[in-house]
Amino acid sequence: MSQHTINESAHTSATAAMPHHIPAETDPVTEEEVFHGHEGGKLSVTATRPISRSRDLAVAYTPGVAKVSSAIAADASQAARYTWANRLVAVVSDGTAVLGLGDIGPSASLPVMEGKSVLFKSFAELDSIPLVLDTSDPDEIVATLVRMRPSFGAVNLEDISAPRCFEIEDKAKAALDCPVFHDDQHGTAVVVLAALRGANAVRDRSLAAQRVVIAGAGASGVACARILLAAGVGDVTVLDSQGILHPDRSGLNPVKADLAERTNSAGLRGGQAEALRGADVYLGLSGSTISPQLLATMAADPVVFALSNPQPEITPDVAAQYASVVATGRSDFCNQINNVLAFPGIFRGALDAGATMITENMKLAAAEAIFRVAADELAADAIVPSPLDPRVAPEVGAAVERAAIADGVTG
Amino acid sequence: MSQHTINESAHTSATAAMPHHIPAETDPVTEEEVFHGHEGGKLSVTATRPISRSRDLAVAYTPGVAKVSSAIAADASQAARYTWANRLVAVVSDGTAVLGLGDIGPSASLPVMEGKSVLFKSFAELDSIPLVLDTSDPDEIVATLVRMRPSFGAVNLEDISAPRCFEIEDKAKAALDCPVFHDDQHGTAVVVLAALRGANAVRDRSLAAQRVVIAGAGASGVACARILLAAGVGDVTVLDSQGILHPDRSGLNPVKADLAERTNSAGLRGGQAEALRGADVYLGLSGSTISPQLLATMAADPVVFALSNPQPEITPDVAAQYASVVATGRSDFCNQINNVLAFPGIFRGALDAGATMITENMKLAAAEAIFRVAADELAADAIVPSPLDPRVAPEVGAAVERAAIADGVTG
Repeated sequence: MSQHTINESAHTSATAAMPHHIPAETDPVTEEEVFHGHEGGKLSVTATRPISRSRDLAVAYTPGVAKVSSAIAADASQAARYTWANRLVAVVSDGTAVLGLGDIGPSASLPVMEGKSVLFKSFAELDSIPLVLDTSDPDEIVATLVRMRPSFGAVNLEDISAPRCFEIEDKAKAALDCPVFHDDQHGTAVVVLAALRGANAVRDRSLAAQRVVIAGAGASGVACARILLAAGVGDVTVLDSQGILHPDRSGLNPVKADLAERTNSAGLRGGQAEALRGADVYLGLSGSTISPQLLATMAADPVVFALSNPQPEITPDVAAQYASVVATGRSDFCNQINNVLAFPGIFRGALDAGATMITENMKLAAAEAIFRVAADELAADAIVPSPLDPRVAPEVGAAVERAAIADGVTG
Repeated sequence: MSQHTINESAHTSATAAMPHHIPAETDPVTEEEVFHGHEGGKLSVTATRPISRSRDLAVAYTPGVAKVSSAIAADASQAARYTWANRLVAVVSDGTAVLGLGDIGPSASLPVMEGKSVLFKSFAELDSIPLVLDTSDPDEIVATLVRMRPSFGAVNLEDISAPRCFEIEDKAKAALDCPVFHDDQHGTAVVVLAALRGANAVRDRSLAAQRVVIAGAGASGVACARILLAAGVGDVTVLDSQGILHPDRSGLNPVKADLAERTNSAGLRGGQAEALRGADVYLGLSGSTISPQLLATMAADPVVFALSNPQPEITPDVAAQYASVVATGRSDFCNQINNVLAFPGIFRGALDAGATMITENMKLAAAEAIFRVAADELAADAIVPSPLDPRVAPEVGAAVERAAIADGVTG
């Protein structure tokens, strides 16, 4: 491997304001370091109780285990107590939309899924197993999950391309009596909402008074539009590659058609220029670019979240000339909007509650908790907690558990 | 839970002869101890490298992981190096034939599969994940494994009822380019062959000179018949619930019909009495019983392996009045024939070799290695090593790896 470096350096100005922030590195991460860090994979399955004596074998395996299996056969609810399934997350992907790399297939997606499992463990003490599937057929994926249902307690769908991801999630939620959560949609949406709450707090604005323009109608764009509407944002206007979504557009898939009905209350037509004029928030989830000239047409003190990775829609230093708050998905700029703030705590809370699903209120509670964690430390360059802030996952978990109980979805 | 005890005490007379034997317990294992030992399940997924700094996150997740995923997308063989799949065993069951409990379903089988994973880790340092499937349809099971293929490196089929287990294993072997091994068949067969080698060494007999009667034509009975024939046993006679298998029997399933052609060279007809008269070895894998009077009709110094669990076909003290060597599946008698002597090393060797399948020679090599480990310590009450003997799995693994290379199945 060459010594080419990957962009990764300190959380800069956000660091000083966060007492719980774990120190970042200033040296760039090298390719050699990355590949060395993946050698042999990143996960291991360990026994919670070691086998060293005949007695251990008699307890964990035969003849002891027969008593436990019999108890579960007689009372299925005992599985939650005496197996790991109830607290196990299946991290499921077909490898069709991996990071910014696209459809690279299940095997190449596995390092990402292993990484996800590492984060589940590191941030929320949750066990998880990566399951990468050699099919991209929605019905086959759902059927596979249904057959594996007794093996796990929740499903994190990951890196599945739109619009298939919507169909797969909808069908999996209908077929499975456990939490199903497509993180690229809802994890992103939860953190974006938390970040917008943070940006609003800094700028003393309300969600209701704002018009948000979302560039991108893929998995994350659709989910962000939905959660922002649910949270009470005044108006959302969504752009796809053909321009502004509106009810008169032909050829929209059902998901976009639904959004077209529920967004763009001003009835705008056109593209980025028409959408951004007078808008309060630009949310980039498109993999495209936005010109500085268009940012100049937005309302006063606008917010720019340029979240495409690894290349944001606009570089933060340029965006900062026009916007009062700028965020990206990258760790080498301030205001990193990273799903790791959301998914570990959301699954922890859902599993702790014994939830059978993840409701809209549970997601809204997660966003609120992320915002609350750092509410006393907010600044224009610190609108969300650091991804490594250890306070976040427990707070999110507790909030999600409470919301699950309030929603009556605890089985 | 009550304090009723489960039969489990010391490895008795076998212990003294084995320097590597780990001390057994004399106190019986209580139900309370068993259930406590399963609380929360028996497995945990851990990160091989902890996440504590921003740099760790940049290596294990974004942006670093994109480099690793890209490398695998460009060269699929890199997955073996940079993911855990290549060294991961899927422990797969549909819960249709769990221990002696029968068809108790996938969820109730999970404690057994978790236990299996504990043993894989404890004896062979192998990672594995239990996958219990909510279908008993052979084609659905195989299709599920095919879809999950990129997630693992080998399949241990477990506790699947006969004759479905034969069809499922055959189809899975044909569909998957990785080792597939139904342990109830082949693990048992390997250890039985090793034990018979041990018993023969003690009695100075050869495999070729012996006639073996197998009571039971289920998963383990069929596999034992096959491996004993492959190892050169002079004759094998198989009994099912209707009596001796012979080519003129009507209504035999294809597996039994095949066995009927290849066994019973003496052309015997009838039941236990006809089969056992003059036989050298009784191998009980039936869940039924055998009367002492029939053992008295066997050849001189016969061998009795009464392997049904938890209740052997005959109690060892009674059998010992007629046989020169007696073995059971139980840990509270000497000569425990336990699959844990075989499967950890077999999978270790197969995965270390990069084997695409587990061949007959690999199984025979495993049996030979188990026999060789304790060859200098053999006695009538110590024909196999202790299940906890730490020498066994590494020796089996090395022998299986060599056999895989010799057979040219290393991919």
